[in-house]
Formats: sequence, structure tokens, C-alpha cells
Amino acid sequence: MENGGDTASTVTIKGILGLLMANVSDKEERRLISLGMGDPTAFSCFHTAAVAEDSVVESIRSRCFNGYAPTVGLPQTRLAIAGYLSRNLPYKLLSDDVYVTSGCTQAIELALSILARPGANILVPRPGFPIYELCAAFRHIEIRRYDLLPENGWEVDLKAVEALADSKTVAMVIINPGNPCGNVYSYQHLKKIAETAQRLKLPVIADEVYGHLAFGDNPFIPMGVFGSSVTVLTLGSLSKRWMVPGWRLGWFVTCDPNGFFKTPKTVERIKKYCDICGGPATFIQAAVPRILEQTEEIFHKRTISMLKQAADLCCKKIKEIPCMTCPQKPQGSMALMVKLNLSKVNDITDDIDFCFKLAQEESVIILPGLTVGLKNWVRITFAADPASLEEALDRVKSFAQRHTKKLIEQC
Amino acid sequence: MENGGDTASTVTIKGILGLLMANVSDKEERRLISLGMGDPTAFSCFHTAAVAEDSVVESIRSRCFNGYAPTVGLPQTRLAIAGYLSRNLPYKLLSDDVYVTSGCTQAIELALSILARPGANILVPRPGFPIYELCAAFRHIEIRRYDLLPENGWEVDLKAVEALADSKTVAMVIINPGNPCGNVYSYQHLKKIAETAQRLKLPVIADEVYGHLAFGDNPFIPMGVFGSSVTVLTLGSLSKRWMVPGWRLGWFVTCDPNGFFKTPKTVERIKKYCDICGGPATFIQAAVPRILEQTEEIFHKRTISMLKQAADLCCKKIKEIPCMTCPQKPQGSMALMVKLNLSKVNDITDDIDFCFKLAQEESVIILPGLTVGLKNWVRITFAADPASLEEALDRVKSFAQRHTKKLIEQC
Repeated sequence: MENGGDTASTVTIKGILGLLMANVSDKEERRLISLGMGDPTAFSCFHTAAVAEDSVVESIRSRCFNGYAPTVGLPQTRLAIAGYLSRNLPYKLLSDDVYVTSGCTQAIELALSILARPGANILVPRPGFPIYELCAAFRHIEIRRYDLLPENGWEVDLKAVEALADSKTVAMVIINPGNPCGNVYSYQHLKKIAETAQRLKLPVIADEVYGHLAFGDNPFIPMGVFGSSVTVLTLGSLSKRWMVPGWRLGWFVTCDPNGFFKTPKTVERIKKYCDICGGPATFIQAAVPRILEQTEEIFHKRTISMLKQAADLCCKKIKEIPCMTCPQKPQGSMALMVKLNLSKVNDITDDIDFCFKLAQEESVIILPGLTVGLKNWVRITFAADPASLEEALDRVKSFAQRHTKKLIEQC
Repeated sequence: MENGGDTASTVTIKGILGLLMANVSDKEERRLISLGMGDPTAFSCFHTAAVAEDSVVESIRSRCFNGYAPTVGLPQTRLAIAGYLSRNLPYKLLSDDVYVTSGCTQAIELALSILARPGANILVPRPGFPIYELCAAFRHIEIRRYDLLPENGWEVDLKAVEALADSKTVAMVIINPGNPCGNVYSYQHLKKIAETAQRLKLPVIADEVYGHLAFGDNPFIPMGVFGSSVTVLTLGSLSKRWMVPGWRLGWFVTCDPNGFFKTPKTVERIKKYCDICGGPATFIQAAVPRILEQTEEIFHKRTISMLKQAADLCCKKIKEIPCMTCPQKPQGSMALMVKLNLSKVNDITDDIDFCFKLAQEESVIILPGLTVGLKNWVRITFAADPASLEEALDRVKSFAQRHTKKLIEQC
């Protein structure tokens, strides 16, 4: 697994969550509640649109899509994704801009593969999403982390970006709507990111796997809007908006009207990568045009409304917990970052200790912030039904109260 | 795409077939017949078992499998594959031996990823399957080719294997039933391979994607039968036996009763690879137990019977073509290798020229042998309905006759 596979930087969310699960007490009689992973399907209130399910069944029953698809994706799927994304852009994407991938994870892998070269480095947000670091390690790309600023709605520290970039920097990554922070960037902030990237001559990898899942003041604006001034590689999938992460249907899209990523050599490299990886199941690809065109607006509105309620409930409950602070109410995605004030508690050394003890004592799973790059924070996924969310956070509260230092100790 | 991505060794079957397709004349009124790819679903006589289709529909309708699966695969899927493969082994595989992959291609990628180390080389058959070379190039693993011997039923040249192996050799690959040769190895030959690998202390990567598709004298025997004396990494999938290559459901299995690939470090490496790649769609994985347990024997018998008839027809027609010789009637899989005698034809310089002119003049696609490592041979896939096969080979015959040197020229 090459050298990179064994470094400390390559911790994965799934790996940590597995360890936390294993730490839940055998004697626990209450149900396990996980607010650890961005998979809403674990809660029955979140399910996909009927048209999505029906389209896949229709596709398999047709018997026309059991064979290999072109490794870049079925033509009709590429066209449908190009059309879907173009609805929110000032120019039209073409089928050839779209590569269908096995979930957004493979889109990340593809992006990093084609950018890899000796000595390369890449700028990623802190907190961020560890798959970037894992993929970069595999490709021997150096990771350079720029901070997101909690006091500014988790906006990008653009000065840090300027300071970190050099001639070997191959791209900067942004995640919007944000995982793990729940941020949704304004048009103005995205414009500043574009201007910075343009000045530094960097393409922007825009991870929009949570695209359209925005319920705060800022509407979701795709980074591709700035594609004419800066090359944007847009990554996305059906996973979150349609709540089907297990379908493994994602996309890598060159939002690049100037054609920097459309030279024959680059296209050839992308295609070869696709050849050795293969994409998602052909019959799922074949269902995509109908899914993108026929999903009713009411389905999306219902999702947004549920996520907003869940986020509000989550923030309200967190305020009641003595050692936790949430600097920024989430405006999108399915997760938020919460700061731990460990000076207020006994016997807990850090975020990892916090999460392991919480799992053991309360059968509640949340993600240690270190996994996403912020020590002594935690990530809480709020894509859960209100009852589960309330119960889980009540247990966190009990846990925190039980471990809170008595006043006399605090003095 | 690293350095390897651009080398000449990284030609892909799909890449070449795409170029051949583009060479079909616009003015051609006859239908295009492709005998180029191992995808039987292009011909309506080949379709999957009803239970396979029904199981996937049932799985998606249950709404239980839209979320993420563990990246190594669903527990019930791993267990079912372990049970399925154990039927033909002298020991029982465990769930933990099985990693569910996105088709057999990802199983190849996984095998090569975990074996990669600085200076490593790997022994692969010639003719072979180019994905091995492409994956090896990506991992900077040197490819060393041993010959398959057409006069001996495409058996492995074991002397060549002994001569090629050194202290940096990480594995030898065998493909059985064979692609592109249609060989099925006897128990005795597999035993000799195992003895050689044991002497050389090499694990064997046994590509059994065409497992059970044997219709000649030798029954299919999995290499894992020799797992007690040599570590076997078995690669397989539903793709060929169930005729669903587009479902992307494969497996990587450690047939390794001695546990060389079960050290915590190796298991950790495999899991991390799985974490960044993700596997097949969860609801397809969930359908696997029912597919493996409930597919009726009559379905498999019908497939074998159709493939045998197709192979017989193919060999009979090839005998009528002046410049073609088939040294070995296929005993399994879906393809055979045919030698071109170019001294008998005008204006054709090599196998690539042959295939391009054939595509242009006759709207028939077959694969140049160079793609699989044998210059001036071609690979013909016979998994087609008899009418298409007959028509395609009649066109090849016309083409060959039209290009045949007149007797006077041959003198």
C-alpha cells in the first residue's frame, strides 16, 4: 500500500467510528445512537425520492443495462449531469466535461491522481475531510492545511492560502456546503476565493457533495459560477441530496470554459484513470437522467426543512451542555463542529478520550475533531430524527454533567 | 496519473476497441458486430438469472440498503462469498478472508496495491490481461512476462517462471479459465504451478473471473485448492458467470489457511485501500447471498451449453479462413486466440492493421493480439449468438479472401 498508507495522517472516519463502536459497553441496554457518520439513511425519516427508487428498478428490469458502461460513464448519464449542473451556471457544461465516478470518494481520487506530480503539494481546509489526506498520501502529494475561521462562519483564511501556495502547489480544495463545519459560503466569499486562486494560478477543487443542502441565509452557489476566471473541478454525487450514499453514484466535472483541463493529454490521463477504476453500476447510471429530471421540488424542500429543524434542535441542546460551544450555527450540509472546553471537566484528556468515554458510558457516537484536523473539538452529524437527536444530546449532557468539575475544584 | 500512466505498456482493451469502433465506415449499411469485448450482455441470448434480477429489485425495494456499507463489504455478503467459494475447497474460508470489490478490476488493483514496494516485480502471463500492466505501472511495479505455451494448451511455461523470479518478485498471476486463450488448467498443471510458487516463495494471484465457465475436458479447479502449500489471492466476480459485468460486484479473497495475509499490518493495509476506494453499491451487495444460494443449476448448465456451441462454431468457421489458425480449441471462458499468417495476405502489415481494416471494410470488431501481448495474433470473443458469430466470421472470411495473395504472388 505504498509508504503513504501507514502514516498517521491517513486515519479515516470509518476507521475511528469502528473503534468507537467497539468501545460501546456490552452491558448497555439503551440503543446505540450514532451521530458520527454523514449517512442519513440510518434514520428512517430520511429516505430517497420514490422516483429515484423506481428509476433504478425500471432500469434493471429493462435488462438493457447489465453490461459494461464506457469507463467515463454512460453518454446519457454524462449529458444529464451536465444539464443538471448547468442549471446553476452562467455557461453550459458539455457531456465531455463530466466523468461518472463511484461516489464522490472516487471523484476525489480522480482529481488527486491527475494532479499528482513529483514534489506536488495541495492546499486543503482545516478542519477538512480526511479522504483528501489519505488520497494525497497514496499519491505522494504533500498536504498543506489552511484554516477555516470559526469566528467568520468558517470562511477560508485567504491570507493563509496565499502564504502556503508556491510553484509546486497543484490545487486548493474547498468543501461547500461544508463538511465538517456546516458552512455555506456567500457569493462574495466565493468570489474572493476565485480571485485568490486566479492570482495564484491554482485550479479549485470544489467538493459539492452537499450541494443544494443549504438552509441558512446564504443560498448554495456552485464554485463553477467562477469557472471563466479560474478552473474549477467540481465533485459531487447523488449521495447526500438524494440520501443514497450506498449507491456510489458520483461525478468529477471540469467547469472549465477556457479548456485548461481539456487538452488531449489531460483527457487521456483522466480516461486511463477511469479505465482502471471502473465506475458505478451501469443500471444505476442509466437511472440518473430520470432521477435528475423528475425528482419533485417537494422532496428537496422536505429534506431542507428536516435538516434545518435538526440543526436548530442540535444547537439548542448543545447550549445546555456545560463543556461544549458551537461557534457557528450550521447553514447547510449535515454536520457541525463543536468546541470542547476540557478545563471544565475531570478525567478527560482530549477529544478522543471524550468520544471513547462517551461511547462507553452513554452508547452515543460522535466524531473526535482530531479526525478532521481540529484537536479538542468534535463533529456532530445532525441528520437524524428529532427523537434520536434529542435523546443522544441528553445523554451527552448527562455525561458532561457527570464529568464536570465541582465549583470548588474549578476555583 | 503518475509516470506510469503514459507509458506504452498501458494500452487498454477499451481504449483500442474505441479506436476500432471509430474506424467503422460511415457508409456501412450492415450492422456492426463486435467480438471484441468479454461482455456477453450485448447479445440478447445471454441474460442473467431471474433470481439475480429479482434479488436486486427486492434489495432496493426494502429501503434497507441505500446507506454506506462497511468498505470491506457487507458482513452477509462476505459470508455468502466465503461459503460459495468454500464449496470447491478442502477447507472453509471465513468472512474475514473476503473483501467485496467494485468488479474484478478493483480486486486486481487491490492485490497489486498491497504487494507494491520499492523495486518490486510481478510475473504475468503472455498473452494476458492488460489491466495488470496498467495497475502495475501505476504502482511502479515492474512487469515480467512468462509465456503461455499454445502447443501445450496454453499452459504456463514454468521454466520461464523460475528464470524470471528473483528476490524482488512479489507474486505470479495466473488467469484460469483463461482470458484471452480459453484454456482451463488440469489439476496436475495447477499442482505444478503451486509447487513452483512454493519453491519460489511466491503468492499466486488467481484470476478466476471466468470461474466455472469450463466446457471442455478439464473441470474448473480453483487455485485455492492448493492454499495450504502456497498463498493464493483469488479474484473473482459475478460478472461473467451471472452475465452482469455492469453490476461491478467482485471479490478479493485470501485463500491462505496459513495466515500469511492475515497479519494485523496486512489486514490494516487492505482495509485502508478499501476505505479510499469504496466498494460496489450496498443494495447490490445485499442481493449477493440470495443470488449465490438460489441460482438454479439449469441456468449455469444453459450458459455452459451456449458457450460450448459458440466455441465450436467459432473454431469451425476459423478453419475456413485462409490466414487464420487456432492452435487450441477453447475449453472455457469466452475468448480464444487466433494466429494470423500474414505471409498469405497483401497490404496488411500486422494484427493492428488487420483489425483496423477489418473494422473499416466489414464492420466487424476483433481485438489485436498486441493488446494482450501477442503480436500478429487476434483475440476473438465467442460469447455471441450463433447468427451473429456466423455472420461476423463469414465477413472475416470474405475480408481474408479479398486480401489473400494470388497463388502466383505467393510463389
